Amino acid sequence: MHVTLFLMHNFKSLEDLIKALRCLPGVGPKSAQRMAYHLLQHDHAGARLLAKTLDKVLTNIKHCEKCNNLTDSPICNLCCPTKRNGSLLCVVEMPADLLMIEQTQSYSGMYFVLMGKLSPLDGIGPKDIYLDRLLNRVKDNIVKEVVLATNFTVEGEVTAHYISEQLNNIGIKVSRIARGIPVGGELEHIDSGTLAQAVTERREI
Amino acid sequence: MHVTLFLMHNFKSLEDLIKALRCLPGVGPKSAQRMAYHLLQHDHAGARLLAKTLDKVLTNIKHCEKCNNLTDSPICNLCCPTKRNGSLLCVVEMPADLLMIEQTQSYSGMYFVLMGKLSPLDGIGPKDIYLDRLLNRVKDNIVKEVVLATNFTVEGEVTAHYISEQLNNIGIKVSRIARGIPVGGELEHIDSGTLAQAVTERREI
Repeated sequence: MHVTLFLMHNFKSLEDLIKALRCLPGVGPKSAQRMAYHLLQHDHAGARLLAKTLDKVLTNIKHCEKCNNLTDSPICNLCCPTKRNGSLLCVVEMPADLLMIEQTQSYSGMYFVLMGKLSPLDGIGPKDIYLDRLLNRVKDNIVKEVVLATNFTVEGEVTAHYISEQLNNIGIKVSRIARGIPVGGELEHIDSGTLAQAVTERREI
Repeated sequence: MHVTLFLMHNFKSLEDLIKALRCLPGVGPKSAQRMAYHLLQHDHAGARLLAKTLDKVLTNIKHCEKCNNLTDSPICNLCCPTKRNGSLLCVVEMPADLLMIEQTQSYSGMYFVLMGKLSPLDGIGPKDIYLDRLLNRVKDNIVKEVVLATNFTVEGEVTAHYISEQLNNIGIKVSRIARGIPVGGELEHIDSGTLAQAVTERREI
């Protein structure tokens, strides 16, 4: 079916564009075709801007020297000397996780982005998540506490555990974001694993 | 919310990329962000190819001189002298409609793509749907019958009606694709408008 679909486009560069659009996540052959036709029929300006912007961002993209996040300057905005609390360093897996935490407006410390998680089965080890950079980062004598905010998945937990061991070895205080019942959650509808954790990790009030 | 989302990205070219990706149909701020991060974290090659392909297709894109479809050569593959039946000319609104008909593998004539439909309220008149090109096209003394395959929407019907009048004036036979019960359709679940049409346009067997 897909082969037929592609063969039937009557010129090569449209086929190429449809194939190229499929590098976008969540875009299958039908959406790619719709996108290509939309750009070619209705939005040449948008398409031109997209091509130019892709080019520009690919040329300039690098990792921030301090937080390892994607940026186009040596040190990103969040890491530039600001009013943020330099003694707290929050470790997240992905740039999108950092954004989610920023959106809560409840954290004003610094960040470190691993750009992944330990996953031995996929061949992703400590080097691939920039652990050496993290260990260097915490040696600035300003960071007092590292907050591990990796996901609560198996790999996220393994990553947090591994990092906490490394940091404990060099005498840095490490904490993990809290696990428990979500805000608005009803006990009746919470899975038993979460409920068990919430009981175990109860806190005095 | 969107403003906050954009302000919080810590470098300008990422923001630009997210905005540029929103020219794609069906892509909102969240998907655009996911796409941008995906490209920058995992698929530089795909992003580079996409930029290059967009550039190339925008440079080469033109309308086929015969069928008005998008193509990169003066005359598209479907219109090149082939074994197709030159006496039939099927008129569709959009390139995607042409593809749908081709996929049925039940039509072997030529095509003409209007690239739109008459829509006076939106200021789209006969000139915008290339009617002069269509009228020139049918004067090649090969086309014997024009099959109108515009949509069965109000605008599609108006377009078909207008085109049929123009073609009748110059003595070309015009037909309209059949309206009725879809294959596999059950009368119980068909809307009454369609059913009424199916009764009115019944055919002898």
